[in-house]
Amino acid sequence: MGPIITLLTDFGMEDGYVASMKGVILGICPGASLVDISHEIPPQDVRAGAYVLSTAYSHFPGGTVHLAVVDPGVGSGRRALAVKAAGQYFVGPDNGLFALVLRESSGWNARSLENSAYWRPEVSTTFHGRDVFAPVAAHLAAGLAMEALGSPAEVLLPPWNAVSRKGNRLEGEVLHIDRFGNIISNVKKEQMQGVAAADELTVMLGEHRIDRFVDTYAQVEPGRLLLLFGSSGYLEVAMNQGSAAAALGVRSGDRLECIVRERPGEGD
Amino acid sequence: MGPIITLLTDFGMEDGYVASMKGVILGICPGASLVDISHEIPPQDVRAGAYVLSTAYSHFPGGTVHLAVVDPGVGSGRRALAVKAAGQYFVGPDNGLFALVLRESSGWNARSLENSAYWRPEVSTTFHGRDVFAPVAAHLAAGLAMEALGSPAEVLLPPWNAVSRKGNRLEGEVLHIDRFGNIISNVKKEQMQGVAAADELTVMLGEHRIDRFVDTYAQVEPGRLLLLFGSSGYLEVAMNQGSAAAALGVRSGDRLECIVRERPGEGD
Amino acid sequence: MGPIITLLTDFGMEDGYVASMKGVILGICPGASLVDISHEIPPQDVRAGAYVLSTAYSHFPGGTVHLAVVDPGVGSGRRALAVKAAGQYFVGPDNGLFALVLRESSGWNARSLENSAYWRPEVSTTFHGRDVFAPVAAHLAAGLAMEALGSPAEVLLPPWNAVSRKGNRLEGEVLHIDRFGNIISNVKKEQMQGVAAADELTVMLGEHRIDRFVDTYAQVEPGRLLLLFGSSGYLEVAMNQGSAAAALGVRSGDRLECIVRERPGEGD
Repeated sequence: MGPIITLLTDFGMEDGYVASMKGVILGICPGASLVDISHEIPPQDVRAGAYVLSTAYSHFPGGTVHLAVVDPGVGSGRRALAVKAAGQYFVGPDNGLFALVLRESSGWNARSLENSAYWRPEVSTTFHGRDVFAPVAAHLAAGLAMEALGSPAEVLLPPWNAVSRKGNRLEGEVLHIDRFGNIISNVKKEQMQGVAAADELTVMLGEHRIDRFVDTYAQVEPGRLLLLFGSSGYLEVAMNQGSAAAALGVRSGDRLECIVRERPGEGD
Repeated sequence: MGPIITLLTDFGMEDGYVASMKGVILGICPGASLVDISHEIPPQDVRAGAYVLSTAYSHFPGGTVHLAVVDPGVGSGRRALAVKAAGQYFVGPDNGLFALVLRESSGWNARSLENSAYWRPEVSTTFHGRDVFAPVAAHLAAGLAMEALGSPAEVLLPPWNAVSRKGNRLEGEVLHIDRFGNIISNVKKEQMQGVAAADELTVMLGEHRIDRFVDTYAQVEPGRLLLLFGSSGYLEVAMNQGSAAAALGVRSGDRLECIVRERPGEGD
Repeated sequence: MGPIITLLTDFGMEDGYVASMKGVILGICPGASLVDISHEIPPQDVRAGAYVLSTAYSHFPGGTVHLAVVDPGVGSGRRALAVKAAGQYFVGPDNGLFALVLRESSGWNARSLENSAYWRPEVSTTFHGRDVFAPVAAHLAAGLAMEALGSPAEVLLPPWNAVSRKGNRLEGEVLHIDRFGNIISNVKKEQMQGVAAADELTVMLGEHRIDRFVDTYAQVEPGRLLLLFGSSGYLEVAMNQGSAAAALGVRSGDRLECIVRERPGEGD
């Protein structure tokens, strides 16, 4: 019944990196419940890390501390952050990792990690996850006020978290290819009011046109492409029993266009 | 010292699926100890899931709740279950995932999950692990009575959990190929009373005949095939320092025949 | 806030082996906090296990119990051990798994696991992790005195944990190739006093000479080899944005020589 701290990294579980962070946390906040979100984020893929974090965080109780370290800029000048948003805490590098969470949040409070009193005494050049972020997350979970960590800060919101709208067209981006080859976009259900029936949405991915909009994979024949909103509300291009990403040659970062056809007789 | 909930899925750890289930659980049952059994069950391989669950559950204290989600039928009409057996609880889809556990149990009590008061308010079409099974497991761990979940139910016991006996022959099936290429059958030690010495057992796998029955891999030369009962009591065909499955071209689901030779001078 | 038990094995997470050990532990020591160090140690690679354990253990609070099972000798006559060192406990086979931890420790107290009262009632021939080591670790975490486990014992310290020094030359060995292809040696920062600037160290790996000594990968151009002390203090040969191990054809166990050039004008 201690505080909950989740961990998301690109460190993998072959080495002792994740365990070192957990040891540091348990030394500072002995009663913490530690929950792994994922340590299999592709190395340095901030976008995939942001996506996976955004699919999981909202299911945790208020006050949970989310420690996220996908940090290609470690050792450079990138800022280190603690952010409070949606009743939860987020600790990690300021590189866009929290952008998809913040996009859904009505407001937030961010601090730059400057007060080394809450870090490990010796900070390595290569492992801020253990030396800066883990101890800060543990102190927050143990009840420290955000204000003690450093001065108020802006949060980097990279271009890939934005969806632009022009009339009945939305332009977004491929965030992530999951293990089944599903192509996950940054477009969420809430951004597409009124899309409910199969004939109302077309997605263009390069030259490819997909317009079979369904509720579940099994509604189309094996090998056919389809559109659906995944269990976290992101629009996906998928193939029943196959890899849509392989079939279409699509990669993370590719642009995608959604065309919503107006329903006849509707005012708005 | 809270209740224990184990998790077994085919979701992998690349995405946030498992963490989402854990967040839901901790919101309902804050003191729970969460233990991963495996999230690397081959996608939709119910048989492998059933095998792995059956090797682990009995080592947990009484009252443990085992949440198991390998669910190729999600979104179809398959039943959702909670089962009490051997002093423990099992929650998941009714597709055979609990068959190997129940085969060893003298009796059980199963309920169909019908009472949506114990689910998440909104149930997605594709992720019942998070929306139905996780909250139900958490409520059980928090002390809810099985009876509150729904009406009494049968449990699906698929053909692959059965071993048939004809005189001195037992016919079973390959349940799982493990990471070392060991071929694990559904035949357990208890089903083969009297087999104790190397010359008393022959296994036929297609055209292949294996009859070197030992206690430990190192008892045969490298590259030689052998038979043994693994640490969970299942009969295995293995190769010392090699992959028996690759050598024999065997796959999950293949039939296997065990011939137990009678010992001279024995009455029974 | 119960005691902490870490787990390190080469079992992988596909099967139920790790969970079986955790179930046994929680039956004996219900309040334990379980932390995975890694279960992805290459099968039977004691050296890699020793390395990963040595990078993680010191970050845990005093009194933590580290359960480590990489055990190629299971079923043979190898000794089973509990060791107290550096204020922490280590439980596992006596095959060198603890050598790198003990190299850094000023002294230790080891017991041979002989008292079967602290094991599971039935001990399999192939899975001492579950049947011997897990219950012993749980009893230690629950407060049992080391002395109860068995008689005092020596600890095997294999040759690969030693670094030999001849004048300004240190001879060591490759301990581990990490997931990025970094070549990690068994030479630690403390064994190389005075090495601080880029021009003072040369490493010979077979015919290859590496002498670019830096603080962080990004200090050299992509594709260039470099030397640095990793976040755990081990000397590494790495390549910025590439695999040093692949480029040099180096493997775990290869010899490596460090030549420290004397700085002019220094007495010692």
